[in-house]
Amino acid sequence: MYKHSHLKEVIDRAIVNLSYNTEAEKLIDPVKYVLSIGGKRLRPVLALMACNIFNDKIDDAILPATGLEIFHNFTLVHDDIMDQALLRRNFPTVHNKWSANQAILSGDVMAFIANECFMQSPANYLLKVFRVYNKAAVEVCVGQQLDMDYERASIVSQQEYLRMIELKTAVLFAASAKTGAIIGGADDKDAELMYEYGRNLGLAFQLQDDLLDIYGDSKAFGKTLGGDIIANKKTFPYVYTMEKAEGKQIKEFQKIFSDRSTDPDSKVMAVINIYDSLNIKAITETFAEKYISFAFSFLDKVSIDQARKCELVNIANSLIGRDR
Amino acid sequence: MYKHSHLKEVIDRAIVNLSYNTEAEKLIDPVKYVLSIGGKRLRPVLALMACNIFNDKIDDAILPATGLEIFHNFTLVHDDIMDQALLRRNFPTVHNKWSANQAILSGDVMAFIANECFMQSPANYLLKVFRVYNKAAVEVCVGQQLDMDYERASIVSQQEYLRMIELKTAVLFAASAKTGAIIGGADDKDAELMYEYGRNLGLAFQLQDDLLDIYGDSKAFGKTLGGDIIANKKTFPYVYTMEKAEGKQIKEFQKIFSDRSTDPDSKVMAVINIYDSLNIKAITETFAEKYISFAFSFLDKVSIDQARKCELVNIANSLIGRDR
Repeated sequence: MYKHSHLKEVIDRAIVNLSYNTEAEKLIDPVKYVLSIGGKRLRPVLALMACNIFNDKIDDAILPATGLEIFHNFTLVHDDIMDQALLRRNFPTVHNKWSANQAILSGDVMAFIANECFMQSPANYLLKVFRVYNKAAVEVCVGQQLDMDYERASIVSQQEYLRMIELKTAVLFAASAKTGAIIGGADDKDAELMYEYGRNLGLAFQLQDDLLDIYGDSKAFGKTLGGDIIANKKTFPYVYTMEKAEGKQIKEFQKIFSDRSTDPDSKVMAVINIYDSLNIKAITETFAEKYISFAFSFLDKVSIDQARKCELVNIANSLIGRDR
Repeated sequence: MYKHSHLKEVIDRAIVNLSYNTEAEKLIDPVKYVLSIGGKRLRPVLALMACNIFNDKIDDAILPATGLEIFHNFTLVHDDIMDQALLRRNFPTVHNKWSANQAILSGDVMAFIANECFMQSPANYLLKVFRVYNKAAVEVCVGQQLDMDYERASIVSQQEYLRMIELKTAVLFAASAKTGAIIGGADDKDAELMYEYGRNLGLAFQLQDDLLDIYGDSKAFGKTLGGDIIANKKTFPYVYTMEKAEGKQIKEFQKIFSDRSTDPDSKVMAVINIYDSLNIKAITETFAEKYISFAFSFLDKVSIDQARKCELVNIANSLIGRDR
């Protein structure tokens, strides 16, 4: 069985070795840049781990796994324009370093570079793998739309929020795990269990990410802390507070979010005070742990010796309790 | 053999009948909008015509052909943001009607809707068709990059310009013709001849489009006349003038383009005066006709009864001499 660290290296190497149409260098420079500034490569690593529990040979999964990472970075490049985010992984975002137009176009070409990677899936799995990927890709766009819609909505329910992060984040984790499983030779039932494992993992990951925006180490996290609060993003702490806070507190909370004159730092401080008083950190962590346990219950049912599942257990545990 | 008008109806109907993930309506509304405001459907019609010369049955080509049209519209939605274009086909552009963020995201999802269409190619041709499409998609991005680069370049040679439009426009015509041919059952040699037919057709189409920006009927054309001149776009008339004009005239031409204080209408008028004095309209038309004759020479070699090629001859002839 391959270790997490080895699989990350495999993906890093595959990314370095990608060949591009270099006729217009300015198009590809931002692609190379965004793929080179780190990131945890969680989705492709997950795909390779999922492949590896069914198969000792993982070579066939490397390019499709890389395609998942390229797609993920494509969404980051475009999301960062939409969110006007200046930093990503402690580096200037593409639209900040180049321009919005460049970020649109270099993002676009990444979608087709991802396609190229998927086209190199083993012939017998190609259509299956491509369908899993493409369905997720559409859903990620839907999730981003809901995220944008919710920024302007006054009330977002916990259920709506969870569905949004399921689409925006979790389905790609799910597709990654399922893609790896399919190429590893899993039958349909196991592939579906792996999808559910990945989906729940993704939900836990996003809840943890919401917390990191508030309680993380900004240097390790690579983004500005409190960014979600400043941007009026509907995060789990936000929707939970809107549902649970009462009386004076809910009015204060709404006032902070609707008052555009408050300076960003004071807004972040005031919001965190309310979150703390409601014990949001522990509650969100409990939710994330619940999804991790759901993930494990699906993983348990996969018809493979439990000993082969260690890396998939470890990666799940590492996602909660991380600082970046 | 199916007529042009029938094939356009087939595509219009296929577009109306597309099914979407409608969980976030705001994501799909702009997609439906941009696909509903007309357009000549040239690329998918070309694909169906190309299929039809090899095969009386064209049903298998309808969805891939529709994918080509969706991809084309995806590029228009994003290009219009980059160019800050307000009108397209006489209707407000997506970023103008909604917002730049909406245009980015709804454009993105179109790339995956196009993928879905291609995934419905006949299984035996799927990978071949997808490769043709995806290579063209990357090249279109490269072409758009060169177009953007050239807006800022002081000198662009005729050769550079022709390569740019080959990538930005002609390769998609080429891929359309080749895709149809493949699904129609053409052998590799004929499929390649159809690619070359489409490529030359696309070059002629773009040269004609450059002229329409200057000499077109703005209502029929659906864009503001002189838009390329105002935006300092390097069109064929521009690069030709830069190569052929001499002495006082070249200095005047450069001055008009570098002087940002000139009002748009005067700039357009002054540029057109120079174009007229150099007989640019007739010269550009001669170039376009040359590419059409190249297209015909490739079409002639396709190992199919010449009588079956009538619609492909007619569509080529209609592209030069059109007013929109």
